Amino acid sequence: MANLKNDLYLRTLRGEKVERTPIWVMRQAGRYLPEYRATRKRAGDFLTLCKTPELACEVTLQPIDRFGLDAAILFSDILTIPDAMGLGLVLEEGVGPVFERPLRSAAEIAALGVPDAEQDLGYVMDAVRVIRAELDGRVPLIGFSGSPWTLASYMVEGRGSKEFHLVKGLMFEDSRAMHQLLQKVTEAVIDYLIAQAAAGAQSLMVFDTWGGMLSTANYQAFSLQYMSQIVAALKSHEHSSDVPLVLFTKGGGQWLEAMADTGCDGLGLDWTVDLASAKQRVGDRVVLQGNMDPVVMNTGPDQVRDQALSVLAAYDHHGEHDKGHVFNLGHGIQPHAKPDNMQVLVETIKSHSGSFHLPND
Amino acid sequence: MANLKNDLYLRTLRGEKVERTPIWVMRQAGRYLPEYRATRKRAGDFLTLCKTPELACEVTLQPIDRFGLDAAILFSDILTIPDAMGLGLVLEEGVGPVFERPLRSAAEIAALGVPDAEQDLGYVMDAVRVIRAELDGRVPLIGFSGSPWTLASYMVEGRGSKEFHLVKGLMFEDSRAMHQLLQKVTEAVIDYLIAQAAAGAQSLMVFDTWGGMLSTANYQAFSLQYMSQIVAALKSHEHSSDVPLVLFTKGGGQWLEAMADTGCDGLGLDWTVDLASAKQRVGDRVVLQGNMDPVVMNTGPDQVRDQALSVLAAYDHHGEHDKGHVFNLGHGIQPHAKPDNMQVLVETIKSHSGSFHLPND
Repeated sequence: MANLKNDLYLRTLRGEKVERTPIWVMRQAGRYLPEYRATRKRAGDFLTLCKTPELACEVTLQPIDRFGLDAAILFSDILTIPDAMGLGLVLEEGVGPVFERPLRSAAEIAALGVPDAEQDLGYVMDAVRVIRAELDGRVPLIGFSGSPWTLASYMVEGRGSKEFHLVKGLMFEDSRAMHQLLQKVTEAVIDYLIAQAAAGAQSLMVFDTWGGMLSTANYQAFSLQYMSQIVAALKSHEHSSDVPLVLFTKGGGQWLEAMADTGCDGLGLDWTVDLASAKQRVGDRVVLQGNMDPVVMNTGPDQVRDQALSVLAAYDHHGEHDKGHVFNLGHGIQPHAKPDNMQVLVETIKSHSGSFHLPND
Repeated sequence: MANLKNDLYLRTLRGEKVERTPIWVMRQAGRYLPEYRATRKRAGDFLTLCKTPELACEVTLQPIDRFGLDAAILFSDILTIPDAMGLGLVLEEGVGPVFERPLRSAAEIAALGVPDAEQDLGYVMDAVRVIRAELDGRVPLIGFSGSPWTLASYMVEGRGSKEFHLVKGLMFEDSRAMHQLLQKVTEAVIDYLIAQAAAGAQSLMVFDTWGGMLSTANYQAFSLQYMSQIVAALKSHEHSSDVPLVLFTKGGGQWLEAMADTGCDGLGLDWTVDLASAKQRVGDRVVLQGNMDPVVMNTGPDQVRDQALSVLAAYDHHGEHDKGHVFNLGHGIQPHAKPDNMQVLVETIKSHSGSFHLPND
């Protein structure tokens, strides 16, 4: 494989002193981009786009080609693992992802098998390999998975939810079955992420989209505990031990200390978290990634510049023990976002972040 | 007016040592109750129910009669103020509350008048008076309002939203117009809450349902600043200075210290917040109210008992400086909840909370 020409993102995640702040954006390959919409139209539907390595590669590279971001992220769906477990993922127009066979009983959970990543999710590993070849060392590739709690929530609810009363009902009424489900999903996620690393992913991220719906005690027991298992397993496996790992719980701003305790390399912060306070709380232990409000990207270039500079200014690089900062939004960029704003954002970070890294006089 | 027979809730909010933990439940008069559904059917529609004092009184008292809760809360809609400001509130089946004339320009905001509570929202004050008479001193009556940010969000979006891109767009692109809107709504809320107190509300609460969608800096500037104005105005007005005031920001667990700084009497906590930690952070300055996950009420009686006891145990009444705890859910009780579970919950709090208040040996 080609040597990396731009390894800023990886050096930052390793806690090295760097010359400027790296930037990538959650959902950077997405509907706000006309070229993405064109590829998706050509693919016919979203799942075909995810399951065809050449098409997944094409959309993964679009924002890299256009904006010069510092990292690419594998284009895939968060629900590939439950799909491989046999739940039957379909996309319903106007509803989003839906499982044809959601889990509704302890018996169904007990019967569930753990997929083999290379065998049952080979299209994802193929996409990683194709993307790595196509990137040709320009920037590192980030692999990812949904968190066990987030995947299990979809598997029980069968679709997105506002209150999550089915999965929380299972959690409160049959915590044993819930833990059994989470343990199986955790094993699948570990295998999946190690396989991505083996296929060429140079950094990994776990998206805990729904952990923030839990009480603090239940977050620890039903979400964080399983993410901790993932960190421990990845850090002790030859294919993934040197691959920086970032955890992101949307709505998890109250729990950063506990998240840092897992031993991960970085934490993603949603936009509600005060970056300066977060740094004081855990910034000497983990790199922080984030966290501009994604809605700013739907406004004007002046707003994008101002808000991006505020985020940069909030992270003090002159502390004795700072680990580092990766610029990102606090959640995925929205379909309403203006592509020109991404250009402004990337230019702002590239041209202005360096000054925040200079030593004080 | 009759003397209060049960003033446990008020004594707790005043920070007095009490014999047990009081309990009321957000949305306790609501769709989970068959008698509520019957009254609503009789009313024809939701807004008629809100705007007819006798019917609002009827549903306010239903959970008091049935469960023996320690406080009643005025039955009303959160959007009465924008409705009185002329935005035209209607209820669309399957969508929820919708404004016929949402605010989409600085000119529309500049033209907006501030309603007079007694004149333009007289049906609410009439409801307060009718309910006080009907309660006849059994328990205190809580009045309430939406927070300025929450009301303004609805006024700009025109309906509930997931991303709030319209109101946040206004906030980022024309903060002056946004502040003008918030200032007008704040004046309306102050007048509205003072009028409720004058009409007989014995405690007041501000619901900041959407403040948790903001970044920390924007929460301070666009939500909390205006709630602070409300606290200051109410605490200096003869009709409301002695009326305990509780602030509740859903998703505001990161900001409890700043919320306590407003000088309010109590803070509502959503279910994600760890009650024991919250008490350590601010429990010597404000009473804490909450915070069982509402989904527990959709499960079985054993789960309700267990989870309620966990909440009680999390608040240590033996600290040197604790102000006190009011039991509640962390958000409104859901339509799926089982009425029998409310009975179990109230009995659990009434029979078990006393032991947590006994002095240690």
